[in-house]
Amino acid sequence: MEFQSCFPVWETLTDAQRTCILSGLAERTVGKGTVLHNGSADCTGLLVVKSGQLRAYILSDEGREITIYRLFDRDICLLSASCIMRSMQFDVTVEAEKDTVFWMIPAEAYQRIMKESAPLANYTNEIMAARFSEVMWLMEQVMWKSMDKRVAAFLLEESAIEGGDRLNITHETIANHLGTHREVITRMLRYLQSEGMVRLSRGAVELLDEKKLTALRDA
Amino acid sequence: MEFQSCFPVWETLTDAQRTCILSGLAERTVGKGTVLHNGSADCTGLLVVKSGQLRAYILSDEGREITIYRLFDRDICLLSASCIMRSMQFDVTVEAEKDTVFWMIPAEAYQRIMKESAPLANYTNEIMAARFSEVMWLMEQVMWKSMDKRVAAFLLEESAIEGGDRLNITHETIANHLGTHREVITRMLRYLQSEGMVRLSRGAVELLDEKKLTALRDA
Repeated sequence: MEFQSCFPVWETLTDAQRTCILSGLAERTVGKGTVLHNGSADCTGLLVVKSGQLRAYILSDEGREITIYRLFDRDICLLSASCIMRSMQFDVTVEAEKDTVFWMIPAEAYQRIMKESAPLANYTNEIMAARFSEVMWLMEQVMWKSMDKRVAAFLLEESAIEGGDRLNITHETIANHLGTHREVITRMLRYLQSEGMVRLSRGAVELLDEKKLTALRDA
Repeated sequence: MEFQSCFPVWETLTDAQRTCILSGLAERTVGKGTVLHNGSADCTGLLVVKSGQLRAYILSDEGREITIYRLFDRDICLLSASCIMRSMQFDVTVEAEKDTVFWMIPAEAYQRIMKESAPLANYTNEIMAARFSEVMWLMEQVMWKSMDKRVAAFLLEESAIEGGDRLNITHETIANHLGTHREVITRMLRYLQSEGMVRLSRGAVELLDEKKLTALRDA
């Protein structure tokens, strides 16, 4: 897979703009768990995922986390280059959730081209609108949905990503995705187990009844 | 105040683009409480506030509300024209919080010009990034801040907007801003009263000790 094929507006750019992007482009490979961008650090650049999985999350002062979105193959991470927009005033941390290969576009080059290219600026708008929509979805979940429904939704999403019913995941990790405490997740999983929806074992959660979990999520 | 002076990229537009915007532009006056845009309704257009105050909020299935941001003089509401971006997939309601005069730019004209004008597309990016930042701030509040701090922050913000210590506001309205139940707000306000920070009377909350409220908010 080539960079150009992950970058839909490539065809609209001028030769000079393409050269500018390609000359600064770097391909990098990082292991699971690597932090690629840290809220308070400087402007890393735009990340384009070639393969793997990234997670963007926010952190509380006490170290609690909540996942705000995930990025998969061909997805672009804009928030790691928040300096390209003056009004983007918030900090996220971006971490590799699996071994990941990505391209990095320097923020400065991207910003310069965006200023003169309506297609690139509109494309950037679409990416931001998509992330904004994910955060609004999360806001609705956090505000109006009870934790049992959110855990059911998370398990189903995770199972779809992994392509299997057995998830190797700790209660602590689930808590960090959903922005709550481990104890809350343990209590909720035990309830789901008592209802026959999951089976718990050390470091793993097995989905036993997707239909029932889906009904709970959508109730 | 003229429309042009509220629209910072006006100078960068071509004559044809200006004519296109002006020919579709409508000035409207609405009373406090008017709903200008309703999540599920069609694409209203961009609203530019001439004077007054708008509130954007989301609604739960049960009718609970939470304010996601407010708009004042010269602010632009993008989310009432969510059709201009394919990826903007969420519903907000926009309501006049005070008697308000605004201009409406038809979504279709705006979208057409944005496709060809890099300055307008970049300006739109900045507006969206600003709203996105406000929602991220709110997310952090909702996730990590206890309700007493959020009530203190709300009262201080409200007092700054109104320019006075006496707020004519019901517990129900505060609950609808913060996404909680009236009972929770009543309990919290009584606690703040017992600590000497506010005085409660029918339909009003009076701020008695801004310093203490600020300390609570920032604790």
